[in-house]
Amino acid sequence: MKFAIYGYGNLGRGVELAAAAAKDVELFGVFTRRDPDSVKTQTGIPVYRSEDILKYKNDIDVIIICGGSATDLPVMTPRLARDFNVIDSFDTHSRIADHFAAVNDAAKASGHTAIISVGWDPGMFSLARIYGESILPDGKSYTFWGKGVSQGHSDACRRVDGVADARQYTVPRESAIQAVRSGRQPELSATDGHTREVYVVAKEGADKAKIESDIKNMPAYFEGYETTVNFISREEMNRDHSELPHGGFVIRTGGTANGHKHVIEYSLKLDSNPEFTSSVLVAYARAAYKLNARGDHGCKTVFDIAPADLSPLSPDELRAHLL
Amino acid sequence: MKFAIYGYGNLGRGVELAAAAAKDVELFGVFTRRDPDSVKTQTGIPVYRSEDILKYKNDIDVIIICGGSATDLPVMTPRLARDFNVIDSFDTHSRIADHFAAVNDAAKASGHTAIISVGWDPGMFSLARIYGESILPDGKSYTFWGKGVSQGHSDACRRVDGVADARQYTVPRESAIQAVRSGRQPELSATDGHTREVYVVAKEGADKAKIESDIKNMPAYFEGYETTVNFISREEMNRDHSELPHGGFVIRTGGTANGHKHVIEYSLKLDSNPEFTSSVLVAYARAAYKLNARGDHGCKTVFDIAPADLSPLSPDELRAHLL
Repeated sequence: MKFAIYGYGNLGRGVELAAAAAKDVELFGVFTRRDPDSVKTQTGIPVYRSEDILKYKNDIDVIIICGGSATDLPVMTPRLARDFNVIDSFDTHSRIADHFAAVNDAAKASGHTAIISVGWDPGMFSLARIYGESILPDGKSYTFWGKGVSQGHSDACRRVDGVADARQYTVPRESAIQAVRSGRQPELSATDGHTREVYVVAKEGADKAKIESDIKNMPAYFEGYETTVNFISREEMNRDHSELPHGGFVIRTGGTANGHKHVIEYSLKLDSNPEFTSSVLVAYARAAYKLNARGDHGCKTVFDIAPADLSPLSPDELRAHLL
Repeated sequence: MKFAIYGYGNLGRGVELAAAAAKDVELFGVFTRRDPDSVKTQTGIPVYRSEDILKYKNDIDVIIICGGSATDLPVMTPRLARDFNVIDSFDTHSRIADHFAAVNDAAKASGHTAIISVGWDPGMFSLARIYGESILPDGKSYTFWGKGVSQGHSDACRRVDGVADARQYTVPRESAIQAVRSGRQPELSATDGHTREVYVVAKEGADKAKIESDIKNMPAYFEGYETTVNFISREEMNRDHSELPHGGFVIRTGGTANGHKHVIEYSLKLDSNPEFTSSVLVAYARAAYKLNARGDHGCKTVFDIAPADLSPLSPDELRAHLL
């Protein structure tokens, strides 16, 4: 099966490497809004102009769209689903219903298969939630994020007056995780469950006390959280904070009969958030290909995909080795 | 949807309670090989003779077969799949291919849907393995069981000369789990990863040293394991070891590019092994019903079932609340 990458940032670069590691996948190339001559791929696959993509309609089985959720994907995914099987990592939870409807209309009308919101949250964490709740209906689910870099919070800190660079880590509270694992089903808000650690390179002569206060009191992003602001040098930033680790925990606790409690826990510890997300995208792109080959059209999410469709192994091999 | 329970031991009793907790499920009744008048159900549902089941062909949507894997299920599941949608918890890994083929033939020929090997291992742990390996193809998977009661090992100890009663706990080695979580991908055998703890009530005047030696050297069950044998009183056995807790860990560690490592961990901590298995069976029985209603016939495993089919929620609700 032949995949193409649409958009060549951190995520697109991760998809390139993840697809190269999959034996049953061939990469057709990268499509970019930049001048193709200015882009050099890691594995030597060709680079095309994004506006030329319709020329390759018959050469690509699935397009993995690696754009941002704010403005790229709401336009790109429905548009490309008119002519291709597509997959994206749309992660704005509050707008998933609209995005799903737009992509579903385009894919159904043209006989294509689309899978949206693929990654780890939404994605693998969503799977942990649906399996947990379906098995233990009498229970409670918790999601903890981190320890990891939140790019949205890092960007917000960089916009504060006097900040040259910033990195924000979301950190789950160990005490909250332990309380959840106990099965006591505590009421926890996001601020109860997490703290925030910020590393800032201040501009020459900036007022550090004001930067710290501006960050800690930023509405929506930091207000209400226990936040620590650490001032570091440019060298320390480059040396200690250049990676994008992330992860987290989805925990479902529930009871059955006779006072019996059960704890289901799914966790991820990722050295590179974009590379892991890319690996999930490649597995689901394989599923998009299989579904389309079976005539299963329209928009899907991870909830609609049987696990066997993610694997390059045959049903016999899966039952023999993984069941 | 109307489910029936076929076999009324620990598992059947668990299914009765799990189905009663599911709002979209009605229980038709219990089928047993015993005299129905001698069986009293926990929720008051009716009891029928197993040999009368064909009389109720049009009254039952799915039969949840609660028999043993050694001799019951290889006969029951293919036989019942000729006339009903069925689900079982067949867990003899080495014989799954034969069981699958027999059930698939029966279900395909008659237009029914069957799901075999449903529970937590095989079952939820199999899902953790397939998702982990599909996402991180360049990696290694590990399964640890426990801490929990192994009924097979407990039975084996009870057959030792001089033993009045026994309970065996399989215990994962914390050091092995930590080595796996580190991402170093150690080579681990089952004996490296687990220890065994046995609690024995000895018969009056029995030779305890010989009992301990007979257990520790039992081939296939204990030989090669670090095993501890503890002698306790009948009262202690009843007070401290009457439950059937279990659980375990499935860990996938793998690399992507640039030396980045990732750890995916799925774990269960269960107060009651049969009650949790029952809860998984009820969720998959819901899926069997939905698949059959869509005309998707034949034998399936957890690998073939999309997560949405396990849930009583609508696709819109799932996307809004769990994605």
